[in-house]
Amino acid sequence: MINKLVAGIKKTGAPIVVGLDPTMKLIPKHIMEKAIREYGPSLDAAGAAIWEYNKGLIDAICELVPAVKPQIAMYEQFGIPGLVAFDKTVKYAKQKGLVVIGDVKRGDIGSTSTAYAIGHLGSVQIGDKVCRAFDEDFATVNPYLGSDGINPFIDVCREEKKGIFVLVKTSNPSSGEFQDKEFEGETLYSMVAKQVAKWGETLMGDDYSYVGAVVGATYPEVGMAMRKVMPKSYILVPGYGAQGGKGKDLVHFFNEDGLGAIVNSSRGIIGAYQNEKYASFGDEGYADAAVMAVKDMKEDIASALG
Amino acid sequence: MINKLVAGIKKTGAPIVVGLDPTMKLIPKHIMEKAIREYGPSLDAAGAAIWEYNKGLIDAICELVPAVKPQIAMYEQFGIPGLVAFDKTVKYAKQKGLVVIGDVKRGDIGSTSTAYAIGHLGSVQIGDKVCRAFDEDFATVNPYLGSDGINPFIDVCREEKKGIFVLVKTSNPSSGEFQDKEFEGETLYSMVAKQVAKWGETLMGDDYSYVGAVVGATYPEVGMAMRKVMPKSYILVPGYGAQGGKGKDLVHFFNEDGLGAIVNSSRGIIGAYQNEKYASFGDEGYADAAVMAVKDMKEDIASALG
Repeated sequence: MINKLVAGIKKTGAPIVVGLDPTMKLIPKHIMEKAIREYGPSLDAAGAAIWEYNKGLIDAICELVPAVKPQIAMYEQFGIPGLVAFDKTVKYAKQKGLVVIGDVKRGDIGSTSTAYAIGHLGSVQIGDKVCRAFDEDFATVNPYLGSDGINPFIDVCREEKKGIFVLVKTSNPSSGEFQDKEFEGETLYSMVAKQVAKWGETLMGDDYSYVGAVVGATYPEVGMAMRKVMPKSYILVPGYGAQGGKGKDLVHFFNEDGLGAIVNSSRGIIGAYQNEKYASFGDEGYADAAVMAVKDMKEDIASALG
Repeated sequence: MINKLVAGIKKTGAPIVVGLDPTMKLIPKHIMEKAIREYGPSLDAAGAAIWEYNKGLIDAICELVPAVKPQIAMYEQFGIPGLVAFDKTVKYAKQKGLVVIGDVKRGDIGSTSTAYAIGHLGSVQIGDKVCRAFDEDFATVNPYLGSDGINPFIDVCREEKKGIFVLVKTSNPSSGEFQDKEFEGETLYSMVAKQVAKWGETLMGDDYSYVGAVVGATYPEVGMAMRKVMPKSYILVPGYGAQGGKGKDLVHFFNEDGLGAIVNSSRGIIGAYQNEKYASFGDEGYADAAVMAVKDMKEDIASALG
């Protein structure tokens, strides 16, 4: 899957992943109203609306970007109907040729981490049949519990040729509260990054490892340092756009081959139609607005990378 | 909810939470076979079997313990049908008067953490209706992303009078990899514990805070130290039994009032029928075996607390 991701980035020229993070504020009014007419005001209506919204977005952008990243929290808040929409979204995006990064930030220990890995990347034997649950291509993983939490994911990834992105330095203002703490002159995030490089060595694709990292666009100097610590790890970069990260900040996250990083934008793309700049598309043109926003983002990154 | 939990512990005399962590190995054969006959070898069969298994367990133990803790990973591995079983389990356990701790170990930032908090503890407005998704009483939360990840949970908890348990020191062997790192002479887990105490001050029940902590039974000396750092926080203690923690190790996790800790056992109780000691119950007697295991655990803790 890391090879497919790299090939997709080369083919589209867009090191961009579109965050499919539906919220009530982002779903266009006409879609939500239609769902409420059909299902009444209910979790079912929310699930149906999310699915229609996402399908429109995927149809519009599937040739322009290599990957999408649904944030499962945004689906989980609507319970089972929300997770049904997550499931449909993953399967549909894959069918359209997109790599799917499940932004699930799971992390537990031993058999529990194995269960998460199975649910999101692997398969489970039931009776005489092998069954697959959510079946994303990549998952994001939280490292707080140490190797016991990560190794079960790596085992499943090795079998499935899939990958993970481990949280190293997140994009939020308070990420430093624990991640920036220094012991013996080294920050926690740097220690995690070293482990990412080590875990990754055991699981290499053609040029990059199946074990990537998350480093926020809002901390470009960290990106520069971590790029060197994990030369073979793809860096998933959140925080561009709505959270304040800019194109020029992204340079440091890439290797000299122009690869090694993939930048996420969620609201900036899927909610572009609510942005003054793209307002002329109107609610009904939300998918076309997303296409324009992707093109603008691609240009912003390309011009920064020179 | 923290008041209800404390009252339940006093009433039952059992500071015990039963971990409802179904795996294919733990589900009794006759239940799994029946489900496969009905649904074929599929995720649906797994979901149906889990629900029947859990219902038997809940019926058997609901008067003996104050709380259950379903580990969502074990359900997520079976996709939507697994999560439907999780949802039914939560609702049924609450109906039976049990406090439900969703062991979800979620953690993200800002609006994403809010979405998790809404999905597991809160409610969401859809059209003119207020809807609830999984609706547990407590959730476990990962602190790696800092206050930005925790505060949205605390906001929802304040509104709903519900609570969280923040991972401080987990029970697994590699938990020290990051959690034990010292900066300026203080471990990471101790820094997290101090934050737990601080977060908890703003959200007090009658005697204990709505913000609890997770500290593994496998590290009793840490339990002793952390007990003092967070005097008003309930400590959820995993790692008893199958993971090696013993009754006498637990003493340090309790306050002098005999309260302040609740000990989890999963396999040791729900899989007791597979243990030589309780083998006479047989597969069909799995729920009765669980009752015996709960009684033995209660005695083990009581004699240790003296």
